[in-house]
Amino acid sequence: MLRTHQAGSLGKDLTGTTVTLAGWVDRRRDHGGVAFIDLRDASGIAQVVIYDEEVAHPLRSEFVIRVTGEVRLRPEGNQNERLATGDVEVVAREVEVLAPSAPLPFQVSTALAGTEEAEHVSGDIRLKYRYLDLRRPAPARALRLRAAVTRAARRVLDEHGFVEIETPTLTRSTPEGARDFLVPARLVPGSWYALPQSPQLYKQLLMVAGMERYYQVARCYRDEDFRADRQPEFTQLDAEMSFVDQEDVMAVAEDVLAAVWAEIGVEIPRPIPRLAYADAMRLYGSDKPDLRFGNPIVDLTDFFADTPFRVFQTPYVGAIRYPGGASLPRRQFDAWQDWARSRGARGLAYVTFKEDGTLAGPVAKNISETERAGLAEAVGAEPGDAVFFAAGRTKPSQTLLGAARVEIARRSGLLHDDEFAFVWIVDFPLFKRVDEEGDDDVAVGSGAWTSEHHPFTKPAGDWVDRFEEDPEHALSAAYDIVCNGNEIGGGSERIHRTDVQERMLAFLGISPEEAHEKFGFLLEAFKFGAPPHAGIAFGWDRINALLSGSDSIRDVIAFPKSGGGQDPLTGAPAPISAAQRAEAGVDAAPEEPADAAEAGDAANA
Amino acid sequence: MLRTHQAGSLGKDLTGTTVTLAGWVDRRRDHGGVAFIDLRDASGIAQVVIYDEEVAHPLRSEFVIRVTGEVRLRPEGNQNERLATGDVEVVAREVEVLAPSAPLPFQVSTALAGTEEAEHVSGDIRLKYRYLDLRRPAPARALRLRAAVTRAARRVLDEHGFVEIETPTLTRSTPEGARDFLVPARLVPGSWYALPQSPQLYKQLLMVAGMERYYQVARCYRDEDFRADRQPEFTQLDAEMSFVDQEDVMAVAEDVLAAVWAEIGVEIPRPIPRLAYADAMRLYGSDKPDLRFGNPIVDLTDFFADTPFRVFQTPYVGAIRYPGGASLPRRQFDAWQDWARSRGARGLAYVTFKEDGTLAGPVAKNISETERAGLAEAVGAEPGDAVFFAAGRTKPSQTLLGAARVEIARRSGLLHDDEFAFVWIVDFPLFKRVDEEGDDDVAVGSGAWTSEHHPFTKPAGDWVDRFEEDPEHALSAAYDIVCNGNEIGGGSERIHRTDVQERMLAFLGISPEEAHEKFGFLLEAFKFGAPPHAGIAFGWDRINALLSGSDSIRDVIAFPKSGGGQDPLTGAPAPISAAQRAEAGVDAAPEEPADAAEAGDAANA
Repeated sequence: MLRTHQAGSLGKDLTGTTVTLAGWVDRRRDHGGVAFIDLRDASGIAQVVIYDEEVAHPLRSEFVIRVTGEVRLRPEGNQNERLATGDVEVVAREVEVLAPSAPLPFQVSTALAGTEEAEHVSGDIRLKYRYLDLRRPAPARALRLRAAVTRAARRVLDEHGFVEIETPTLTRSTPEGARDFLVPARLVPGSWYALPQSPQLYKQLLMVAGMERYYQVARCYRDEDFRADRQPEFTQLDAEMSFVDQEDVMAVAEDVLAAVWAEIGVEIPRPIPRLAYADAMRLYGSDKPDLRFGNPIVDLTDFFADTPFRVFQTPYVGAIRYPGGASLPRRQFDAWQDWARSRGARGLAYVTFKEDGTLAGPVAKNISETERAGLAEAVGAEPGDAVFFAAGRTKPSQTLLGAARVEIARRSGLLHDDEFAFVWIVDFPLFKRVDEEGDDDVAVGSGAWTSEHHPFTKPAGDWVDRFEEDPEHALSAAYDIVCNGNEIGGGSERIHRTDVQERMLAFLGISPEEAHEKFGFLLEAFKFGAPPHAGIAFGWDRINALLSGSDSIRDVIAFPKSGGGQDPLTGAPAPISAAQRAEAGVDAAPEEPADAAEAGDAANA
Repeated sequence: MLRTHQAGSLGKDLTGTTVTLAGWVDRRRDHGGVAFIDLRDASGIAQVVIYDEEVAHPLRSEFVIRVTGEVRLRPEGNQNERLATGDVEVVAREVEVLAPSAPLPFQVSTALAGTEEAEHVSGDIRLKYRYLDLRRPAPARALRLRAAVTRAARRVLDEHGFVEIETPTLTRSTPEGARDFLVPARLVPGSWYALPQSPQLYKQLLMVAGMERYYQVARCYRDEDFRADRQPEFTQLDAEMSFVDQEDVMAVAEDVLAAVWAEIGVEIPRPIPRLAYADAMRLYGSDKPDLRFGNPIVDLTDFFADTPFRVFQTPYVGAIRYPGGASLPRRQFDAWQDWARSRGARGLAYVTFKEDGTLAGPVAKNISETERAGLAEAVGAEPGDAVFFAAGRTKPSQTLLGAARVEIARRSGLLHDDEFAFVWIVDFPLFKRVDEEGDDDVAVGSGAWTSEHHPFTKPAGDWVDRFEEDPEHALSAAYDIVCNGNEIGGGSERIHRTDVQERMLAFLGISPEEAHEKFGFLLEAFKFGAPPHAGIAFGWDRINALLSGSDSIRDVIAFPKSGGGQDPLTGAPAPISAAQRAEAGVDAAPEEPADAAEAGDAANA
């Protein structure tokens, strides 16, 4: 070992002893020919005093040095309370430069943490020099916390008898519906592997295999357009159990979350509350409601049943209260109209309640006197509040009000990174209409309905026997766990019976040929005795971002990609040579169709 | 939970209580209208007795059932000592079929484990129905052991302060020299990611980042021809440390190995012995010698210095003893000639020592009387032994004798799966001549010499200052850990100084342009103060195969690929559609060279 002690471990007890430290020059100050070096290693900082000017001369920021010297108490008044080692310093006897450093593209000194100079570095520069970014306290802490968090989750799952199993990543397209990353298979000309969007099919196969309790910290891949906070490769904590129902999975999941949040000293109240999907939409306009604050949506459909106001003569009218919003200047209300239009709405109707209780705002004059008189009570508004309305079809209106609810809370300063509100969303619809598809998903099958989750999700209760009869109201045994408005995990009971799975695929308009082609091996496996099973997958990057108070999952990934899926550090992806292309078999033609069909049969018969 | 107890947990203490079990019908026997079902779950087997013929009628092998009934002592004389639950049985009151099973392609019943019927299933059928294969005791045990082994390794590394960090798998070509798997990057037309052959560069960057102690159970990818026991994706336990030398890494590695082998009740004698590469070649003809047995190679070069036998008038003559080999029939010695020729040798000269001490065999008459007289003593042969010779260039001769040494031990029944002999191989040559390249590797650079390990390996001791002067004898600070003739891990101290790295690349004939293109980002990172660092990577699949007594790493991988990189279960890889091909950007042209060069500069400048 090139050192005897870690810098951050020095204390009064070592006074008078000789130590050897190794680390980086975090900061250097000079007073009267004496150099004071803050020596930084992974454990912390220690002050090194160098009296020999010649020795001290070459040392610059981020040089890697080794120092041997005697620990002594700092002179009275020179202690540094902000440092764990602030009572002592090391008087250098020997100093060795292990590696010099060129001037840095941005400052990483611990002393600058939190300052403008240190924080205002553009994201791309941080990514390009990620190895320097990670020398700063907050980024390094985020990675260390992530390791501790993963360890805590593994401990819980190990205690519950789960078996950690690694599943393949050079595999076949999985049916999540997003775009696959593809890999040419040199040895099977014209054929390609797909990188997995999740271990979904493999974990179900492991249940058929009798492993009973599986988990994996699984790398997953989705070739999406990288808007917002997405990464082409991301991590799931993935688990599956046999001979259980959703209660068992949720209990284990809560144990995992409790252990994980305990790593940052937060105790999650148990049991985590549950909210039916329909209630979440009704009250919060979202299937991932932020429950750090209240202020639910108020359904005013009945209230406005006989309204003279044409705009409110719709299947649904709802409202959201903006506490204190009455005092906003007009231009802010105008900005809210733009905000609503950017979300595809026509605008955002509103009223304000003056301090004297009278109504103002564009809507006030359009509604009846009775409506004006009862409105404050109906929406729970106080003098000084504003109220936004949405009217039209139910779901889009609720969604708009739900988004306004969060935005109001944000502008009102009600969203705190160190508060956490968890909720299970349950009783999901089993299906959605194909025309309701989110843009993340690709419709599977040719029917009018597609799976809200995926085609392996079990219908809830006795819907399993009659989901075809009333698909609009059929519920699934699926559950999402939501924290602060983020879906941080989700799962379901799975269909384990061949007959039910075949009915489901038929209902979704997935032909036997398509089913055979896409996941014939799973259907085949189910013929040999599949146990009832259920599972969950946690979005591990998002959970870690929440835990470390990071805005972006990039902050909890060691080497994240930029928005376009590029890595400014390594320059990946990069052009390949013609020779590489030829060798990888990128342009090889597949075997003749007849042979390919046979190969398919052999694999899936 | 669909059950109250695990089948394998039933014991006398539960007599008289009502339990609900769920699992598979492992075996069914019928006696006088009563059905006896061995119910199997992950925990073990319990006997269920069903008196109702109608209830019992449909139950077949591998049906998934749920049984509620009372635990009772088995009648005197009917206990089954081979079962943990053999004192009791469950008298079924309710039986529910959770899922039926079609007839199986091969038997998986626990009762058949180890029998001809169960074991003689072809590898491809086992892979295609891996979910059935894993219901059998040995394959399931191998996966469960692997989970325990990984947990043990993590525990040790956590205790040593290592931080588990996930590195990217959509990345840029790494310099291991094998062929990369490639992934088209849709969003960067004409550019491709490479799947990592190891996290080598990223872990070095993490050291530059000051993480100091990193580890990862890392998926790695090499697009090799899948001869022998290779998989296109495999797992390394990968670790790196800062401010250490090889002694520190070896100490941690031994802690990991000790904890891992303790999982199968084996205590590894510490410290693990060390052998210089040169000695390993001299004594065992291999850099991964199997030390479960002795019988080293005997160097007879001096002994035959004046030999009249033309075949032995070579730079090197060596011999290996075959204890008791004199009694082999002539056709076996002929077979040994074929064995040697299949390894590229001209043959395998030999003598036999008769019980009366006289020499026989083709070589005997060619050597001098003095040589005949002294040979037994020189090679340590006893009456009844045979001795094989190899003569020619030193390394090929030693390699041939080393292979013969292992083959003799195998044929003599000296290789036992449950004995483990560990050895560190140290003092590796830093370079090898380009014409000595193994076929795994692609020569890096244009020089006469290439790295024995990789270009980031630090020269040992003061070779760092003068490796160019005597490349043939220069040693590296590299170390391999070998168990039973398998290289199960390897690592090195790394070059951390830009000046040394640049000299190394220049010596290897890697131009600054090529270096910039391939790993410019690492060289760039080293400019900003890289700490001295060293690491190791363990071949996790191989280690787990050794621990579970498996012949092949396939047995310790949940869903392995067949020899051609195919998965008979899922049918991966598979042809892709023209639409997928177009969408993935497989045929997109890269940006214009000028732009590409700029992008490269931006990334690596």
